[in-house]
Amino acid sequence: MNQNRVFNFSAGPSVLPEEVLLQASKEMMSYGTSGMSIMEMSHRSKDFEEIIQSAEKHLRSLMNIPDHYRVLFLQGGGSTQFSMVPLNLFSKYKKADYIDTGSWSSKAIKEASKYGKANVLASSKDKNYSYIPKLDSKSFSLDSDYFFITTNNTIYGSRFTPDSIPETGSVPLVADMSSNILSEEYDINKFSLIFAGAQKNMGPAGVTVVIIKEDLLGNAMDITPTMLDYSIHADSASLYNTPPCYSIYMCKLVYEWLIAKGGIKEMERINKYKANLLYSYLDESRLFKGTVVKEDRSLMNIPFVTGNEDLDKIFVKEAENQGLVNLKGHRSVGGMRASIYNAMPISGVEALINFMKDFEVKHK
Amino acid sequence: MNQNRVFNFSAGPSVLPEEVLLQASKEMMSYGTSGMSIMEMSHRSKDFEEIIQSAEKHLRSLMNIPDHYRVLFLQGGGSTQFSMVPLNLFSKYKKADYIDTGSWSSKAIKEASKYGKANVLASSKDKNYSYIPKLDSKSFSLDSDYFFITTNNTIYGSRFTPDSIPETGSVPLVADMSSNILSEEYDINKFSLIFAGAQKNMGPAGVTVVIIKEDLLGNAMDITPTMLDYSIHADSASLYNTPPCYSIYMCKLVYEWLIAKGGIKEMERINKYKANLLYSYLDESRLFKGTVVKEDRSLMNIPFVTGNEDLDKIFVKEAENQGLVNLKGHRSVGGMRASIYNAMPISGVEALINFMKDFEVKHK
Repeated sequence: MNQNRVFNFSAGPSVLPEEVLLQASKEMMSYGTSGMSIMEMSHRSKDFEEIIQSAEKHLRSLMNIPDHYRVLFLQGGGSTQFSMVPLNLFSKYKKADYIDTGSWSSKAIKEASKYGKANVLASSKDKNYSYIPKLDSKSFSLDSDYFFITTNNTIYGSRFTPDSIPETGSVPLVADMSSNILSEEYDINKFSLIFAGAQKNMGPAGVTVVIIKEDLLGNAMDITPTMLDYSIHADSASLYNTPPCYSIYMCKLVYEWLIAKGGIKEMERINKYKANLLYSYLDESRLFKGTVVKEDRSLMNIPFVTGNEDLDKIFVKEAENQGLVNLKGHRSVGGMRASIYNAMPISGVEALINFMKDFEVKHK
Repeated sequence: MNQNRVFNFSAGPSVLPEEVLLQASKEMMSYGTSGMSIMEMSHRSKDFEEIIQSAEKHLRSLMNIPDHYRVLFLQGGGSTQFSMVPLNLFSKYKKADYIDTGSWSSKAIKEASKYGKANVLASSKDKNYSYIPKLDSKSFSLDSDYFFITTNNTIYGSRFTPDSIPETGSVPLVADMSSNILSEEYDINKFSLIFAGAQKNMGPAGVTVVIIKEDLLGNAMDITPTMLDYSIHADSASLYNTPPCYSIYMCKLVYEWLIAKGGIKEMERINKYKANLLYSYLDESRLFKGTVVKEDRSLMNIPFVTGNEDLDKIFVKEAENQGLVNLKGHRSVGGMRASIYNAMPISGVEALINFMKDFEVKHK
């Protein structure tokens, strides 16, 4: 690791691969032989078209996205998707099933309620979102335009595993995959629409990827602002207006880094190894404990507590002094949270565990 | 100029100050003593809060923005503003006056028509938008929620000069200032809302600045998506969700560059000098001619033609070989267009004119 750099456990925006940052730095003043920065480049230029097309091609290859899905690079973050999904998909029943597994799905539910009925089919709010509700497919609405889940809950540290993705039959499954896209293999064919803000596993904040089945396009509600209509962006290959060019370029570099690393299968292996290191230690520690039921644990965001708020504060402070930063937990859970996205090296998790072991000896 | 760099006359995204790119490159791997890139930084971190607050402070100082205006850093470009303006401002009459001076105002008119009445008070479409219509304030609607203009027309190369801004009395004046914000002194007090995509005079694509009078906040239509409600962003100081952090940082660097250069008054002097160099040459050239009536000429975008399409093509090609790039005109006007934003040095305009003179000798 570069001497000046820390291990950054931020939940998002979050750590990026050092190799990617280095390449971006080198190409800042002039990209290839263009004589200009990518930031200065027309989005209609040949150079930029190659960048956005490569980004799409790489993402399709990484996630095995079939041809009948469109890949869009949009602005506005997941929060804008909370509106775009109902505005574009409430085409028949103006109703959708939602699973409430944390703050982000709650916000999505609230937004959809503006435009139709957001039916909360199940929720884990009763136990501070520390688990994923068991779903009975018999309870799924048949008169529903879509079925909405959040695959990974950044704040609470829970996730739908690839095996627990609900089978929704002919009802399109929509997934907010912002905080665990590209971290393990999900079967793309189970989903009709996936969206993800870039700032966890793909690049800097400012670009949102949407993967949408073609047959869902073209049915937006009349009141939909042009810029929130998926079909507008699909028809112009994400170049209806000026896209967030530089953020898309950064995503392309991250996708290339992932491919060079061996793709999602290999990334899943590494992510499971990293998460298991930390969870195993948490399970045997007498000071620290995890907050999520075992089978629903996230591979990306790992909250843990000592049960003593003062001690938590000391931990966060002392960790920071050791170059282990952004470990403070979200106020909804308290304690600590280690976000260990794709770009967090194994050595970062090992350094954290070593620090935790030392801390435990000192404070128990 | 850096040996590898060209003179980039792109209409947007467009040239950025070389000093700014150099600083961004240096700070890529670690910002200050943070040990991380700005792209990796939580938007809730102290470092990033300082960045966004400085950006706002600098912009307020550059444009003399009074305290009763809010400054927002949003996503979605000018095209999203075309919806946000009516969705937020159609609070009483659901009607607004629009001046149609080119493609962008046409798009704004079309979008507003979704949510109410967009009254086209005047248009220069009859002469391919080569002038700014003379306005008679007696014709302005009194039952109008706002009055909309585009201060500079990137494609056609015309502009409302600071002296020709319409006096709209108690009706709020809204301006799309995307392509000439910060290029000359407009009196902020004449406007109730100004918006501008960053990618011409402020930074990379992906952030849109909105300057809005406080008394216009809080009256959005019921159907407004949360992320398109100005008051949501005003209430959370542009941190309702993750903002486009890196683009905001780049804007901050550009604002600092502008302040170091002497602010907008000095930039206006330089811009008038640059534009005058090129317009004076066009006015005396026997080969090239400008396409816009003199009094309405843009300081930023200067279209010109030879009247011979084949010759235009040769010009663009030969210029490119000399490192004078992106001079091809927009298809709506044809010929050539030199976009000479704040970051285009005087030497770039001089190099262009020298090339034009040589070309004229060869081809006349």
